[in-house]
Amino acid sequence: MTHYDLAVIGTGSGNSLVTPDFDDKSVAVIEEGTFGGTCLNVGCIPTKMFVYASDVADAVRGSGRYGIDSTLDDVRWLEIRDRVFGRIDPIAQGGKDYRVNGPNTTAYLGHATFTGPTSLTIDVDGVPQEVTADQIVIATGAHSVIPPVVAESGVPFHTSDTIMRIDRLPRSLVILGGGFIASEFAHVFGALGVDIRIVTRGPAMLRAEDEEISRDFTQLAGKQWELHLDATLTGARERDGEVVLELAGGETVAGEMLLVATGREPNTARLGLEKAGVATHSDGRVQVDDYGRTTVPGVWSLGDATSPYQLKHVANHEARVVAHNLAHPDDLQKFNHEFVPSAVFTHPQVSSVGLTEAQAREAGIDLTVKVQRYGDTAYGWAMEDTTSIFKVIADRKTRQIVGAHVMGPQASSLIQPVIQAMSFGLPAPEMARGQYWIHPALMEVVENAVLGLDFE
Amino acid sequence: MTHYDLAVIGTGSGNSLVTPDFDDKSVAVIEEGTFGGTCLNVGCIPTKMFVYASDVADAVRGSGRYGIDSTLDDVRWLEIRDRVFGRIDPIAQGGKDYRVNGPNTTAYLGHATFTGPTSLTIDVDGVPQEVTADQIVIATGAHSVIPPVVAESGVPFHTSDTIMRIDRLPRSLVILGGGFIASEFAHVFGALGVDIRIVTRGPAMLRAEDEEISRDFTQLAGKQWELHLDATLTGARERDGEVVLELAGGETVAGEMLLVATGREPNTARLGLEKAGVATHSDGRVQVDDYGRTTVPGVWSLGDATSPYQLKHVANHEARVVAHNLAHPDDLQKFNHEFVPSAVFTHPQVSSVGLTEAQAREAGIDLTVKVQRYGDTAYGWAMEDTTSIFKVIADRKTRQIVGAHVMGPQASSLIQPVIQAMSFGLPAPEMARGQYWIHPALMEVVENAVLGLDFE
Repeated sequence: MTHYDLAVIGTGSGNSLVTPDFDDKSVAVIEEGTFGGTCLNVGCIPTKMFVYASDVADAVRGSGRYGIDSTLDDVRWLEIRDRVFGRIDPIAQGGKDYRVNGPNTTAYLGHATFTGPTSLTIDVDGVPQEVTADQIVIATGAHSVIPPVVAESGVPFHTSDTIMRIDRLPRSLVILGGGFIASEFAHVFGALGVDIRIVTRGPAMLRAEDEEISRDFTQLAGKQWELHLDATLTGARERDGEVVLELAGGETVAGEMLLVATGREPNTARLGLEKAGVATHSDGRVQVDDYGRTTVPGVWSLGDATSPYQLKHVANHEARVVAHNLAHPDDLQKFNHEFVPSAVFTHPQVSSVGLTEAQAREAGIDLTVKVQRYGDTAYGWAMEDTTSIFKVIADRKTRQIVGAHVMGPQASSLIQPVIQAMSFGLPAPEMARGQYWIHPALMEVVENAVLGLDFE
Repeated sequence: MTHYDLAVIGTGSGNSLVTPDFDDKSVAVIEEGTFGGTCLNVGCIPTKMFVYASDVADAVRGSGRYGIDSTLDDVRWLEIRDRVFGRIDPIAQGGKDYRVNGPNTTAYLGHATFTGPTSLTIDVDGVPQEVTADQIVIATGAHSVIPPVVAESGVPFHTSDTIMRIDRLPRSLVILGGGFIASEFAHVFGALGVDIRIVTRGPAMLRAEDEEISRDFTQLAGKQWELHLDATLTGARERDGEVVLELAGGETVAGEMLLVATGREPNTARLGLEKAGVATHSDGRVQVDDYGRTTVPGVWSLGDATSPYQLKHVANHEARVVAHNLAHPDDLQKFNHEFVPSAVFTHPQVSSVGLTEAQAREAGIDLTVKVQRYGDTAYGWAMEDTTSIFKVIADRKTRQIVGAHVMGPQASSLIQPVIQAMSFGLPAPEMARGQYWIHPALMEVVENAVLGLDFE
């Protein structure tokens, strides 16, 4: 039994908790998988590296529209893959080495289970290690959910954990799911030349987005990929080296590979939380208060294990707050979950912040809404854009922007001034006219969106 | 002699002065060239359309870096050109028709000269038209300067007014000048396959930018284009269908076409301003006060005719202010020339706002400076970026950002949150931490730049 001042379970955002405040303290860092967590190893970072290559492939394919004739000769998949992981894997390894050999941290490479409110047992290669700590942080992240129909069928499948490491591109890829992970991988592999077949339960893609974005995106998705919407999966089997999904109504969808992207759930089921008395929500997320404290004194949680957002920038923020709170019990900081933006790096790119139009109406806000087409600005002319939109929603009484929803090039960049205005309470008319917008930069889309709000 | 409530000379930004405030008044609109002015016809808007095509060509050429093998087969110059002007020329024509046939405007298509403080004579196809007006606005813009050595040599040359309309791409283009116009056209034609040879007086390109940007850009320019810096032009001649520039020291630079991009000066010399008593600066710009009033009551000026900025977004702002002031003499608004950003749509893209580091040092500000490399952020990894930078300069006392200087993809978008922070007095630390930045979007470059400032 070894005692620590702090034990952190999970080395994604949890890894950043070991701040200089703990230089004179003892810290256990526990990891059962790859150091660095989802974002670094199998999430945001590698996906964006693949997405960028796919964006380039799309640019080549679409060059004729601008009078540039080009041919896409070849996609060097292995080289792309090895470039991505050649950069990432050493970072994960370095992070591990630093914790294993670090001055005041002890790394436990195994699965941790609570044995009481302040005690854990860690299964390190079959040898249980008993650990107690004054404070314990649950930062265990989340994992892909596999629908029982697929799991029980025995067909081979990939998740976001494995699909990026495949040895060769398939001719065709069936993607089960219609959310952001499905949409990003559809873009990645579709642009690299793979036939994409999407099977999703819902009537549209990206249903967490504003209805208008979801609708428009679904329309564009249908032009790039084979879409099977409103699909109920009834079975899965293999046939002639292909995976075949059987849908209610008798339809089948086959492809050389299957990617399951039907959602993620928190890694909390096997933590023995009941032994510690740590309460969870019905969806398995650890219950925390505004300070990151669980229902057990001294036990904290952050990131995908507890957060409904499943976004790295939220987890980073929560880690900063918890890092502070661990060291400053008399000066606790709160999580700030207002105005949390997100982006989907698919094609076209999507970003959003705040309320959707439906949410804003439901909240009874007296709305003004402007949907600015990129194509009605000078830079949009240059891009020959016909489909991209920047939608902004504001409260006519307070003149504050309450939501923005973007689909088009640079969506994740263009939304930032709106996030900034919302975060600091800058009213929309002042935002539009109180600063210069470079002409004719793409940001004029934002200027015109905000100018188009009606506060009369 | 016809009398008007308002006479506007120039239909660039001046054209937007005819607001609903003038619905019941008589307005003369005077244009000697193409309706719409520089920006629409020969400036920001068409150049960006060409730039975008060139960006696409560069993306094709650079695709191999991302594992995408492609071939640039052909550049359909005439199609690019006709697509651009097929969109723009009808807008100029429509603007003209609207003024010629408009309800309360009379269009005079000719050159105007002051005959007194409230009177003009307009040469319409050789027939002088006498006009008086209660208020007159000088919005005559600017034109390219041709160095005497070139003008007197008799060699054929282009300016930004004509180069975009050429009938075929030359094999080689000599560009005289090293500023933003030279840099944008070097990118446009270089990316479309033309050999670019730049001849400039200065020791670097883009010398109006922060020294670090200018230095880094010059280095990258030298890898794309043949650069002749510190060059003194001593002569120009034609030889074997090429234009040959002779430089001090005996060197010559030859090319199939010559583009002169050595600066622009205001269109004020031939306006008879001395007859009206309108004073000018030594560089020819009309002198105005903060409200846009010249030294003569009732005579106003805006845009490139008076502004040191020569930027359309500044001219648009000035036009809004003057439009208000013309109609509200008892409630005058001031020009706001603080925090004026600009961008150069070359390769790589450049943007800036506020003070350069040298200017800030000269102003005696206690500085903190951070140069954030795109390549040290996750999205920069995806882009395999090694050269792009976001430089931010702040005042350690006030914690306000006083300048930002960017070179790299999306420079003109990424700078906007900084413009917004500067314009609304948001201190740097609050800006960095008081809002979410989407991970791993390119905006993290800005987040990290601002976080990197040292206010300890």
